[in-house]
Amino acid sequence: MEYAIGIDIGGTKISAGIVDQSGEIITKKVFSTPQGTRDSILLLLENIIFTLTESAHFENKQLIGIGIGTAGQIDFVHGKVLSGTANIKDWNDVAIKKILSEKTNLPIYIDNDVNVIALAEQQLGAGKNNDDVICLALGTGVGGGVISGGKIIRGAWGGGAELGHIVVDMNGPACNCGFNGCLETYASGTGMARRMREKILADESIGNNGLVYYKHHPDELNSKHVFEWMQAGNEAATEVVEEAIRALSYGIVSMIHTFNPTMVLLTGGVLQDGDWFIEKVRSKVITLGIPSLVKPVAIQATQLGGDAGLIGAAIQPWVYQDNRNVSLDRS
Amino acid sequence: MEYAIGIDIGGTKISAGIVDQSGEIITKKVFSTPQGTRDSILLLLENIIFTLTESAHFENKQLIGIGIGTAGQIDFVHGKVLSGTANIKDWNDVAIKKILSEKTNLPIYIDNDVNVIALAEQQLGAGKNNDDVICLALGTGVGGGVISGGKIIRGAWGGGAELGHIVVDMNGPACNCGFNGCLETYASGTGMARRMREKILADESIGNNGLVYYKHHPDELNSKHVFEWMQAGNEAATEVVEEAIRALSYGIVSMIHTFNPTMVLLTGGVLQDGDWFIEKVRSKVITLGIPSLVKPVAIQATQLGGDAGLIGAAIQPWVYQDNRNVSLDRS
Repeated sequence: MEYAIGIDIGGTKISAGIVDQSGEIITKKVFSTPQGTRDSILLLLENIIFTLTESAHFENKQLIGIGIGTAGQIDFVHGKVLSGTANIKDWNDVAIKKILSEKTNLPIYIDNDVNVIALAEQQLGAGKNNDDVICLALGTGVGGGVISGGKIIRGAWGGGAELGHIVVDMNGPACNCGFNGCLETYASGTGMARRMREKILADESIGNNGLVYYKHHPDELNSKHVFEWMQAGNEAATEVVEEAIRALSYGIVSMIHTFNPTMVLLTGGVLQDGDWFIEKVRSKVITLGIPSLVKPVAIQATQLGGDAGLIGAAIQPWVYQDNRNVSLDRS
Repeated sequence: MEYAIGIDIGGTKISAGIVDQSGEIITKKVFSTPQGTRDSILLLLENIIFTLTESAHFENKQLIGIGIGTAGQIDFVHGKVLSGTANIKDWNDVAIKKILSEKTNLPIYIDNDVNVIALAEQQLGAGKNNDDVICLALGTGVGGGVISGGKIIRGAWGGGAELGHIVVDMNGPACNCGFNGCLETYASGTGMARRMREKILADESIGNNGLVYYKHHPDELNSKHVFEWMQAGNEAATEVVEEAIRALSYGIVSMIHTFNPTMVLLTGGVLQDGDWFIEKVRSKVITLGIPSLVKPVAIQATQLGGDAGLIGAAIQPWVYQDNRNVSLDRS
């Protein structure tokens, strides 16, 4: 049996562990993401690698490499974060692979966080045996990962699959990214909260059943509230959720027309308990687009849960190492 | 020097010829597309292959294969037209490769018409030395071809890169494809003509300077008229063209966010003389989207002109043949 170190770098926490060849997590540790400079993160990464390497050595487990997933545009070939995320401080233009290679002899692979989730799901989860899989992470923002013809879509320098920023309405609201009418402005947690906020501020009466507090503290409102109010029968909240589902469905159909996938996998906090939301998206998508492309597509939740990012990060050495660059054994 | 047979199957004509290893067309013949059944087209293809093979033999030219481009969803692996185009009769579910392989010993490759244009441009034209290129053909419809990481995006069964059918406005008009607000409803010849027609029928006064005839014969109106009337100062026509440019720009930015390409190449009748239209698209695109992804992208016309489809079809044997499956010599 072979093993690899996986590290999943998020805005609030960093998960790290040893994962075996079948994608099983053997050990796992979770750290708070250092909120200082890049150096504090890099130091933590060094410590993680040192500790896990020692521990593997002690238990006589053969490590074949290190895989890292992190938000942002990642230059996979050079193992570099080009532009990170607002949630991680000082996380731009960081040559992770070069820096960490001075501390370990193991090969290092670094990719975008949603790319590695897509990889994990396609190799070991819901997308097993599918070479054309789209993965959407609906959280604070909307992230995308695409596997097309068995390969991750990265583009010229790792900026590909920014699927939160495809347009669904060219007359739609401005997005943080510089574009407008992006899928993310409707179907992300931030987008839904913003739209709910606008409705409350525009119409006094909306806030009267339980939302009074947020009329005066609109910035504390998040997408979880929107779902709660919808469940409680609030009309404005229901509209926001329905608009998110509609925009997401249009976005997914555009993606199906672009990539002709067999599966679209959804993950992230916006899904709530998952089933009813995804079911609504599925029923909408099926009414739209080119039937021969849209109808056969399975739209479902990811399977590996919260550890998909860690597993996907860790399996990179097997997927990419010389002479076995196709895929994990899919047994 | 090696040679290949190329065949470009269009709705009105079929171009065929012998192309050399550098992409040079040695001989070329143009036929009207048979308007009967699939058999009449297949018979013509057989005759073309027979004649060109004989001619190559006579001139002592070594043929290494046959490459075909045709509209529709093409199963590249099995060399099959899955669903063709309304412009070619009876052109669905045609196992071209299997049928023609009974008549020739040469290997046969078949791909979508815009895919082979993208291939030609990326190997020999404007996209040389670029591994991430998007090609858009703005004609009756809007066709797409994408090369990402050096590979053509085909999807699970050849339905990928239907870029005319990504949404730019989820509240937009119905499209033939079953979706609505597609790029094609704004930026294709048919879409522009339809929008102009709607404006004329809705407002009597629009037709008064030279458009009177089309008030009574709206079906004869095409995008060429729209451009002429715009040039003559007609306001409604100007709006239609500006809307096409705006929708195209939004669509292109979505594609840039999806594929992180270095180039977007435009071709097709809607470009007219090309320069001013592309320049307008370029100036609009640059104001939209994620600057780090959008700003470095070259947006320009294809380079190989009307023969790009024939050349792209013909070079497939070199691009895909065993042991040289990377690319043509890009000297």
